[in-house]
Amino acid sequence: MSEKQKSLESFRNRIDEIDDHILKLLQERNETVKKVIDTKIENNLPIFVADREEEKIAAFRNKAAKLGLDVDWAEDFLRMIMSSSRAYQSGNNFPVTRAGKKSILLVGGRGGMGRLYANIAEATGHEVRILDRDDWDQAEELTRNLDLVIITVPIKITEETIARIGPFLSEETILADFTSNKSHVIDAMLHAHSGPVVALHPMHGPDVMNVSKQLMMVCHGRGESEYEWLIEQFKLWGLRIKYVDPEQHDRAMHLIQGLRHFVALLHGSFMKEFELKPEDMADFSSPIYRAELMMTGRIFAQDAELYADIVFSNFERRTLLIEFLEHHHLLADLVKNNDRDGFIREFRQISEFFGNFADQALEESSYMINRLADRFG
Amino acid sequence: MSEKQKSLESFRNRIDEIDDHILKLLQERNETVKKVIDTKIENNLPIFVADREEEKIAAFRNKAAKLGLDVDWAEDFLRMIMSSSRAYQSGNNFPVTRAGKKSILLVGGRGGMGRLYANIAEATGHEVRILDRDDWDQAEELTRNLDLVIITVPIKITEETIARIGPFLSEETILADFTSNKSHVIDAMLHAHSGPVVALHPMHGPDVMNVSKQLMMVCHGRGESEYEWLIEQFKLWGLRIKYVDPEQHDRAMHLIQGLRHFVALLHGSFMKEFELKPEDMADFSSPIYRAELMMTGRIFAQDAELYADIVFSNFERRTLLIEFLEHHHLLADLVKNNDRDGFIREFRQISEFFGNFADQALEESSYMINRLADRFG
Repeated sequence: MSEKQKSLESFRNRIDEIDDHILKLLQERNETVKKVIDTKIENNLPIFVADREEEKIAAFRNKAAKLGLDVDWAEDFLRMIMSSSRAYQSGNNFPVTRAGKKSILLVGGRGGMGRLYANIAEATGHEVRILDRDDWDQAEELTRNLDLVIITVPIKITEETIARIGPFLSEETILADFTSNKSHVIDAMLHAHSGPVVALHPMHGPDVMNVSKQLMMVCHGRGESEYEWLIEQFKLWGLRIKYVDPEQHDRAMHLIQGLRHFVALLHGSFMKEFELKPEDMADFSSPIYRAELMMTGRIFAQDAELYADIVFSNFERRTLLIEFLEHHHLLADLVKNNDRDGFIREFRQISEFFGNFADQALEESSYMINRLADRFG
Repeated sequence: MSEKQKSLESFRNRIDEIDDHILKLLQERNETVKKVIDTKIENNLPIFVADREEEKIAAFRNKAAKLGLDVDWAEDFLRMIMSSSRAYQSGNNFPVTRAGKKSILLVGGRGGMGRLYANIAEATGHEVRILDRDDWDQAEELTRNLDLVIITVPIKITEETIARIGPFLSEETILADFTSNKSHVIDAMLHAHSGPVVALHPMHGPDVMNVSKQLMMVCHGRGESEYEWLIEQFKLWGLRIKYVDPEQHDRAMHLIQGLRHFVALLHGSFMKEFELKPEDMADFSSPIYRAELMMTGRIFAQDAELYADIVFSNFERRTLLIEFLEHHHLLADLVKNNDRDGFIREFRQISEFFGNFADQALEESSYMINRLADRFG
């Protein structure tokens, strides 16, 4: 072994030692975070506090700068460390609201979202009941002395389920739902029940480790002071709350849910038609297209019925998809006529419409693409 | 301050100490990696060795498991640490091939890709010359005693540029290009030059920190043994090499470049038409749609002309886009006719076509979406 190779060897050994040391510090850090969480739970304090996190990040960036490290990279690194300690919460208890323990019924509680929230509510100490498809004969018993009922069934049977549960509810019970469609559903709830009503839309899937930092959309129905404890409980679980108007919510959802899934289907279906195998495409991929392909491909690992429900959820959404085809014609004409100048004009108008958001999108997506390339590239 | 608050305070102080300690270890790690790189350069060894990295990751996972840490998270964490040390290379020198230093001409060397490769080649010790738009009067001088010329000009002037440079080249000079279009270009190069020819397509943008781990597509033209040193140099820079047939390459690129950018334009244009402001959309976003929106939005922070060139690059690509519109009609009919069953049938056929790739896509995209949520959520 030459001198050079020996020094290479000793450098590598030092790197291994450093990595071991970092790993042990991480373990101690996670244990310390656990102690913080336990103390917070005992004192009914929210687990995730955005301001404290931002302060911590600013301080970390400063220290990294003093050590000559890339500050943006250091921030990403700290956020990654923090996400590890957030993951540690999932097995833990959560703080309960000042209003104390409640009895909660999840209608459709054996679906993904139902199970997730049932677990969290139970871990918090609430009494959780489940009413699934075959349990309607026990509806009377399950709704006795009930503080809250959440409807979390497939979109197409939400309204009929609301109408069915309504007569069982007493004046004090809060009626809520988790559907991604709000204006029709809130009307159905106000009609079926005379007590407090709140329409909810958790903006995450059932496969998250915990709901910390996730977004919950809230549309007011009736009796705000009576469902206040529920909003407080969501905040204690770490959820971010956004109050929205049901119509505004639905319009955005038609685009977000309807259009996105339809476009993904279109992309996948076209690849199938032209026998462009995804494995081959991935081989040819730049990191950017790889990210794109993964976003499309993920849809097809999931349930066809679920996506059909999302795309065919109602008339407004189908109308939007038809308008989308008409819009496609206008743009395809530019291609048909080889109208490069027209394309550039349209592109620039869109750039203007996107404004500063485009720069933010470039930054955020580049970050995401680089992480994907680091991990799977 | 209560006992509980005091202990909370002391736990937090311990967390801050641990974070400081990790940061210092990271700094030492980066310095050690720098020493490894310097030693490698002196010994003409490739900087990135995939096998060594995979071994290191497997060992790290084992250690994390013993400490009771989540092993997948630990792998992500180590990859992130490693990406920091890769970033450190960018300012460094690179090892030169056994064939020694070469003289390299970049035609279009003041564009993004030209500048990137000019910097890397110069840092390696090669003699780099630039021929840009206004330098054709110096073409004879710039091509004297030249080992390699790389054409890296906009797609639409690539073929005329090749024809123009051809007569200046001697029999020994390697003619190469960086265009994303290969079959026409390789014919043009073989026609313009009787010496060694190789068509290249670097699968990354000009904004990468360095080319380590990036993919370089290679289409053979003529004189493989003469351009062998170039492939070796790419590998020493850390590039992954994939040999492809030009027709197969182009077919994939029509889909990857043409279709992806057209679909993004369609999405953005539709949002503009319906005044669905991206900032509002982002507010309503689940982490999944946020990722999608950022992938679309990034396009509009970039140059309209560049995208027009990509979409309108040739007749085959435009034909594919027209076929895409026809395909849209078929799927839109399902929506028009409210044919939920037809949608489910099509969805399932696509799922079958995607096969195991869909599961991989779900895993990779979930990883990416979670990183985005950790960082910007």
